[in-house]
Amino acid sequence: MTQRPAILIMQRHLGPLSAFLEGAYDVYRFWEGPPIEAAHDVRVLVVAGEFELDKDLIERLPNLSLIACFTSGYDGIDVEWCRARGLPVTHAPAINHEDVADHALGLILAARRQIAEGDRQVRAGGWTPASKTITPSLGGQTIGIVGLGAIGEAIARRAEVMRMNVQWWAPRAKEAAWPRADSLIDLARASDVLVVACRADETNRGLISAEVIEALGPSGLLVNVARGQLVDEDAVIAALRDGRLGGAALDVFETEPTDAARWATVPNTVLTPHTAGATTEAVQGMLMLLLQNLTAHFAGEPLKTPVTT
Amino acid sequence: MTQRPAILIMQRHLGPLSAFLEGAYDVYRFWEGPPIEAAHDVRVLVVAGEFELDKDLIERLPNLSLIACFTSGYDGIDVEWCRARGLPVTHAPAINHEDVADHALGLILAARRQIAEGDRQVRAGGWTPASKTITPSLGGQTIGIVGLGAIGEAIARRAEVMRMNVQWWAPRAKEAAWPRADSLIDLARASDVLVVACRADETNRGLISAEVIEALGPSGLLVNVARGQLVDEDAVIAALRDGRLGGAALDVFETEPTDAARWATVPNTVLTPHTAGATTEAVQGMLMLLLQNLTAHFAGEPLKTPVTT
Repeated sequence: MTQRPAILIMQRHLGPLSAFLEGAYDVYRFWEGPPIEAAHDVRVLVVAGEFELDKDLIERLPNLSLIACFTSGYDGIDVEWCRARGLPVTHAPAINHEDVADHALGLILAARRQIAEGDRQVRAGGWTPASKTITPSLGGQTIGIVGLGAIGEAIARRAEVMRMNVQWWAPRAKEAAWPRADSLIDLARASDVLVVACRADETNRGLISAEVIEALGPSGLLVNVARGQLVDEDAVIAALRDGRLGGAALDVFETEPTDAARWATVPNTVLTPHTAGATTEAVQGMLMLLLQNLTAHFAGEPLKTPVTT
Repeated sequence: MTQRPAILIMQRHLGPLSAFLEGAYDVYRFWEGPPIEAAHDVRVLVVAGEFELDKDLIERLPNLSLIACFTSGYDGIDVEWCRARGLPVTHAPAINHEDVADHALGLILAARRQIAEGDRQVRAGGWTPASKTITPSLGGQTIGIVGLGAIGEAIARRAEVMRMNVQWWAPRAKEAAWPRADSLIDLARASDVLVVACRADETNRGLISAEVIEALGPSGLLVNVARGQLVDEDAVIAALRDGRLGGAALDVFETEPTDAARWATVPNTVLTPHTAGATTEAVQGMLMLLLQNLTAHFAGEPLKTPVTT
């Protein structure tokens, strides 16, 4: 082993973290080639939680002792499997839920009030004296929130001040200021706007099924700020094409980056590149937690924010 | 005169009103040619308040007895001049301020969280594994609201739940839940986001001057959901081009429709075609008031919503 612990960063978009880690650690970047000679040195993997963790790689790193997830979500990580190998997992909870909720409202407004489409129209010279775009008011519409965790609650508070009626559904009942629908289908049927804001894991892949999309219906808007795998994306595209779904505003996708060609002829969409939680302030907060977890780990102290489930 | 009173609709985008008026009135549309033979029949002009009222035309309509403004704003109408001629003016107040506020927040989010830009990026195939857009959080930023009427207050309530600090300025002080800045320049200097939400008239043309834009500065965002004439648009464009202003999100313009070519090479803009208040629900409410005002006028009863200033 070298003098300093080695850290392997897995995803290319996390590359900028190198500058903050190289002061104390040797840093390897997976996309520059797997660190075959340094396989014995790597003590920590730094990962984005939405990407599937490569178990084969982990088994080739004999001195790995921590999976440090930069993000809040850790759906790509088999936490049980890691625990069985004595590998703790850390993440960055409660940092960016308000920013994600802001972005969700931004997506709702961009889609419902045709802000993205209006911007395209003005730029293309499509605004004429005869044209007048009329869009639906948010006032009095029902928003259905799937998952009433920190993000879901933050969305509910924003939607309420925009005069929307809030309902929600999650598998488990809990005390809340807003009524819980009896089922996801009931929620979709009652909703003008359905926002996916729940945690993703193997139990709820494809939760927003063709049946749920059908229940949301031809004037409904589907918004996803959680994870792409929660939504049957092929079913969404098919329903948008033939008008069985009114619109979709998506920040997350089954495959990321999503292929532009996949959306080229799909109507009534607003698409953002998984930026809902990526604010300057949130990234700084996540970086701080990452550094604190690393320091604690190498000092043999309790981890700052371990995944505990 | 014919049996039924004649109504002249001035702006082409108000053309769809014809269907609701033709049951009770003879309807002329100005853009189909001035009703020269019917000049003696026209009793009411139906107008959009943001367009300058043609005084020469009015003087050629001897039996005109009402200016019915379809919109809430009536900045294009010289109300004093009309009053001196015995011409009452009606408008549609307190119908769409909540919708305008929703749109203002949509513009802020579209610009600040790069929703319009992100949508373009995804569609153009610009989202790659290496790319990661980081945007500023709204949390803790200061929003300065110019004009704290119904629209301004509705914006303030929304901004507050998005964790923004609210300040405002208007020429007249008043009781409010948020602090009033000492001057417009002070407000601009203190603001990350400056939203124009005041009434426009001849006294405040160009209120958002080059000096105000300079005070808002290179990381500031200017939002206008009021009237284009309130903003020195050439100064905004110049400041955006050389980075003295951070961004602009505009629903209204000096000339409408605005010329697409004018904005083609101006960076950091979100542009919508004057749709902030144009929701289905608001248009229905405005139509209802228009019909009530017409009925009252021809029955010799008090007008439902006259302009009283």
